[in-house]
Amino acid sequence: MTTKELLLSPVAEPAKDAGDRITVVGVGAVGMACAFSILSQGYSSDIVLIDVVEEKLKGEMMDLQHGSLFLRNPRINASTDYAASAGSKICIVTAGARQQEGETRLDLVQRNTDIMKHIIPPLVKHSPDTILLIVSNPCDILCYVAWKLSGLPQNRVIGSGTNLDTSRFRFLIASRLGIAPTSVHAWIIGEHGDSSVPVWSGVNVAGVRLRDINPDIGTDHDKENWKELHEKVVSAAYEVIKCKGYTNWAIGLSVSALVYTMLKNINGVHAVSTYVRGLHEGLDYEVFLSVPCSLGKNGITNVMKQNLTPSERCSLKFSASAMAQVQQGIKF
Amino acid sequence: MTTKELLLSPVAEPAKDAGDRITVVGVGAVGMACAFSILSQGYSSDIVLIDVVEEKLKGEMMDLQHGSLFLRNPRINASTDYAASAGSKICIVTAGARQQEGETRLDLVQRNTDIMKHIIPPLVKHSPDTILLIVSNPCDILCYVAWKLSGLPQNRVIGSGTNLDTSRFRFLIASRLGIAPTSVHAWIIGEHGDSSVPVWSGVNVAGVRLRDINPDIGTDHDKENWKELHEKVVSAAYEVIKCKGYTNWAIGLSVSALVYTMLKNINGVHAVSTYVRGLHEGLDYEVFLSVPCSLGKNGITNVMKQNLTPSERCSLKFSASAMAQVQQGIKF
Amino acid sequence: MTTKELLLSPVAEPAKDAGDRITVVGVGAVGMACAFSILSQGYSSDIVLIDVVEEKLKGEMMDLQHGSLFLRNPRINASTDYAASAGSKICIVTAGARQQEGETRLDLVQRNTDIMKHIIPPLVKHSPDTILLIVSNPCDILCYVAWKLSGLPQNRVIGSGTNLDTSRFRFLIASRLGIAPTSVHAWIIGEHGDSSVPVWSGVNVAGVRLRDINPDIGTDHDKENWKELHEKVVSAAYEVIKCKGYTNWAIGLSVSALVYTMLKNINGVHAVSTYVRGLHEGLDYEVFLSVPCSLGKNGITNVMKQNLTPSERCSLKFSASAMAQVQQGIKF
Amino acid sequence: MTTKELLLSPVAEPAKDAGDRITVVGVGAVGMACAFSILSQGYSSDIVLIDVVEEKLKGEMMDLQHGSLFLRNPRINASTDYAASAGSKICIVTAGARQQEGETRLDLVQRNTDIMKHIIPPLVKHSPDTILLIVSNPCDILCYVAWKLSGLPQNRVIGSGTNLDTSRFRFLIASRLGIAPTSVHAWIIGEHGDSSVPVWSGVNVAGVRLRDINPDIGTDHDKENWKELHEKVVSAAYEVIKCKGYTNWAIGLSVSALVYTMLKNINGVHAVSTYVRGLHEGLDYEVFLSVPCSLGKNGITNVMKQNLTPSERCSLKFSASAMAQVQQGIKF
Repeated sequence: MTTKELLLSPVAEPAKDAGDRITVVGVGAVGMACAFSILSQGYSSDIVLIDVVEEKLKGEMMDLQHGSLFLRNPRINASTDYAASAGSKICIVTAGARQQEGETRLDLVQRNTDIMKHIIPPLVKHSPDTILLIVSNPCDILCYVAWKLSGLPQNRVIGSGTNLDTSRFRFLIASRLGIAPTSVHAWIIGEHGDSSVPVWSGVNVAGVRLRDINPDIGTDHDKENWKELHEKVVSAAYEVIKCKGYTNWAIGLSVSALVYTMLKNINGVHAVSTYVRGLHEGLDYEVFLSVPCSLGKNGITNVMKQNLTPSERCSLKFSASAMAQVQQGIKF
Repeated sequence: MTTKELLLSPVAEPAKDAGDRITVVGVGAVGMACAFSILSQGYSSDIVLIDVVEEKLKGEMMDLQHGSLFLRNPRINASTDYAASAGSKICIVTAGARQQEGETRLDLVQRNTDIMKHIIPPLVKHSPDTILLIVSNPCDILCYVAWKLSGLPQNRVIGSGTNLDTSRFRFLIASRLGIAPTSVHAWIIGEHGDSSVPVWSGVNVAGVRLRDINPDIGTDHDKENWKELHEKVVSAAYEVIKCKGYTNWAIGLSVSALVYTMLKNINGVHAVSTYVRGLHEGLDYEVFLSVPCSLGKNGITNVMKQNLTPSERCSLKFSASAMAQVQQGIKF
Repeated sequence: MTTKELLLSPVAEPAKDAGDRITVVGVGAVGMACAFSILSQGYSSDIVLIDVVEEKLKGEMMDLQHGSLFLRNPRINASTDYAASAGSKICIVTAGARQQEGETRLDLVQRNTDIMKHIIPPLVKHSPDTILLIVSNPCDILCYVAWKLSGLPQNRVIGSGTNLDTSRFRFLIASRLGIAPTSVHAWIIGEHGDSSVPVWSGVNVAGVRLRDINPDIGTDHDKENWKELHEKVVSAAYEVIKCKGYTNWAIGLSVSALVYTMLKNINGVHAVSTYVRGLHEGLDYEVFLSVPCSLGKNGITNVMKQNLTPSERCSLKFSASAMAQVQQGIKF
Repeated sequence: MTTKELLLSPVAEPAKDAGDRITVVGVGAVGMACAFSILSQGYSSDIVLIDVVEEKLKGEMMDLQHGSLFLRNPRINASTDYAASAGSKICIVTAGARQQEGETRLDLVQRNTDIMKHIIPPLVKHSPDTILLIVSNPCDILCYVAWKLSGLPQNRVIGSGTNLDTSRFRFLIASRLGIAPTSVHAWIIGEHGDSSVPVWSGVNVAGVRLRDINPDIGTDHDKENWKELHEKVVSAAYEVIKCKGYTNWAIGLSVSALVYTMLKNINGVHAVSTYVRGLHEGLDYEVFLSVPCSLGKNGITNVMKQNLTPSERCSLKFSASAMAQVQQGIKF
């Protein structure tokens, strides 16, 4: 008899699946920050990493496994074969190419669409009931692409979108006020990136709308120049990338917060990218943009209808129109 | 249109079940400490309370719900109808009568068996894949009763058993040494209660067996009288009950630790009550006693075969024989 | 040599104090729920229980200690002697008498003032830099009493106040909307209890003021009768007490959230009872009432100046005036 | 008046220090994994990053700050100036050069000693009561160097040492047995790296020594070749580095576990590098090696005296002698 047989008297086969499997596609800095955030916060006990680069994949898997003892024993698996992802509750897609010098935006979108063709169908094949959480950029358009490629209903194809921009915004407002970001309520919606829309009309602390005490807040006329906080949000990613080469920690935490809300079926409200046609006046395009959504076990349960100002609606429409045009050129 | 309709644009029905439902039967001090331990540690996001006393049940449910904001929004439900427990991954049974003056042990067992007849079948009916975790006393015999009444396989009927006694034992050893209980490895097995068996031969810190440095440890010859620590474990429940009327916090934490290990499919090893016939020499009785078991999503996966001394084996056999005798008298 | 000496080679004296000591005065249902919430959520690793009933105190201490293994090894101590509380960062006061039949409110306040005379001075003597967190009822007046008795600055005498009422309010609004309480932003201020003031004008979800989409919300004219949610908040404590005899879980969680915010120096905003003279127009009384405050390591850092409606200001003034009158009658 | 002044009525200055400040020196992959592990697990609410590369430092700080919302609002600061680290409870040193081709070990040690001369004195100057936790390699010798440079007592200069090797070892044993790493008790001591010593004689599960059921375990005669698990531990770092270029997650988690144990004053036992002269027979060198130690708020409180076999003692002595020789050549 082996040591194991002498020690253990088997009673039943261990279950293969704890019921909270999360797959992360792409083990670059962003994918690994997502995986590590989920594990270190104990949000899932079953992580699968998928990538095409076998060596890197193995290295990341081993490195996480070596920390199992401190993570309360999650199951950590990795494979180049999507079969390993079977039964995932949520699939986080972080893979994708970065924009190259001289490349048009449509060229980048097309390249990433081609990559998505190899990722989305096998994910959905092995986990037909999964939620797709798209993190790759440009997040909103790739979310549309993933929706088209997956055949999944709208509620189960979600982009991480402006959940991160919103987090940066709240941090910056909070820093200026000297209170906690969790006590500052503010939203950035629209496109994840340069044309994102800060909803200044809704910014509030303890139920006090800042616009009620400073009517010019967020506008060009504001003597206190709160507007620069949104500018800082927009430039944040660029600045972090300039300084360290990439961003990973904040997006990892942002994504893991979404995972928690969905896995625990909490119906918490987060700004994520979703199908927005018809949500606001003039939004007549078949596009994905971030708006506040309640999220649960089956993805998006509700979209919040914010009272936007005409200029906010106009910004959204402008983004949507530009995205629709890019989308028209995509070859599926 | 209502405020809700004006605010929310529905996308999909919220999921009813997060997939980690835990039912607690009995909302006395023990049941509520179990429920609160699970919620406050975030081990489940879906708790169902079952009891026959409607008023008390409602009060406890409301009190927990009023704290939802601080618990990251779990689903908390309560009912006198077992249908509310449907789909539970684990059902924790804390209901039962206490021994009355002049009552024999068999009389108590019979009374609690009669109570179990109203609890176990409806639990299993509504959650046929559940794990039954029996906390009511006498824990080991009621675990046998629940097994008989449920028709479930051995791996899915578990008694909280000496997981608590073991926790008390490790705390007391740790206090004497001045180090953390988590760094003291020691086990109490056998019957939960007076005849529990401390496995002194296995007590170790950092891989150092205390018996190797003090060969008399745990025996009557030990000049340092470590034996008194087991005596304190045995008297602990009595002393706490004398002081405050009941015990709840430690058993609540002990049970929630078992829930975590099973729900997260960790295969951690805990001393729990299980079917032990044939596990050790002379253990020829169809009884449940605590031994170290690995626990996962489908309950007990392995029983650990400890190297017991003849006197430890003898103690176990003695308990088993006494329990078998009581069990013979039970009318199902 | 003893087993301990053979096992351990001492290097340095263990530190007596982890620097996060919390004292809980009163080990009734509320005090113990506070202590257990703090421990089970890992908010402090050092809890001291103080009470006059030695037996009960010992039972509660032992019961918590027996769960140490599952709590990551906190230090749990209990004593009738306030010296044990020395060096506390926060002292939570839950002790106090309950209103008896036929007793006037002033009589009750006087009785509890007399109890506070035995609690507050020794707490402050042993922990001169502590924050006093008053949970005993009537919370606002006893907070004033504790402030007078302690000689501490305003920022370090805080009442748990309407942090709990606010939690109940957000839960009820969230339930009606079908989203998470953490995503519903609403405040109840003023007196903890019957005359509390719901600030309907500030209630918002995702930056959307519900009053903007339902101008009558919270008023008598509202066809959807949202007002009843505040009525339910007011009756909640009575109903829970009727059902189970007392409330403990929600207040325990509410208090532990305040402890976390202060101990971690987060400057999160919570509705707590503080000295409000001059905060709003007409509030000319030397009283404590709940308003949103940012809380950190040295207690209250800021009070939020909400835009109250005339009727909200009037309600506050009315409460303040009634309290001031009661306070005049107190014999220190 | 500004928006801030209209919103906030100041009561008291926010505290600068929550009392749990941790400084991480070096923001490479290891340093950042340490910082992120500590933050994402909520082990500290106050992190300071120190490095010489200003840009990288700023990028990492911003990236962490942008995630504040999801981290419950910690204080995150970064500076090239050690004054920012003032008042740290623990300083984690991850900075250091890597071995270059053709470089002797002594050359590397000398280069890193020269780096330590710029790190250790300013750390100790600004936080005279701090604990130094040395992670840079070769960990044991640099721990000795830090001890010499710091003038701190032995209990407050600690190397992360074989806490990581032990974690890998327990994971591998656990995987072979099919149970949780937390339920496998095993220790690797000695030098962090190639000459580390697995204490097979103490490996146990549920108090069962594996050597009692397989007397050859860990030896060359063992037919089941458990020895290869230690070989895998030794090659683990090399393999992960080959696959992904560096290791970071497991060491980050390993270090954060040490931080938790010390900050919370838990006296948990971990294998860390400490001054071992005289601890075991023949260990007559003034060197640092990993052995199981209990850790608390003032660092190492006890060293565990394991019962080593002659060959284990011999291995330790051999490492110690080699290290002593290298140390003799260091120019301070």
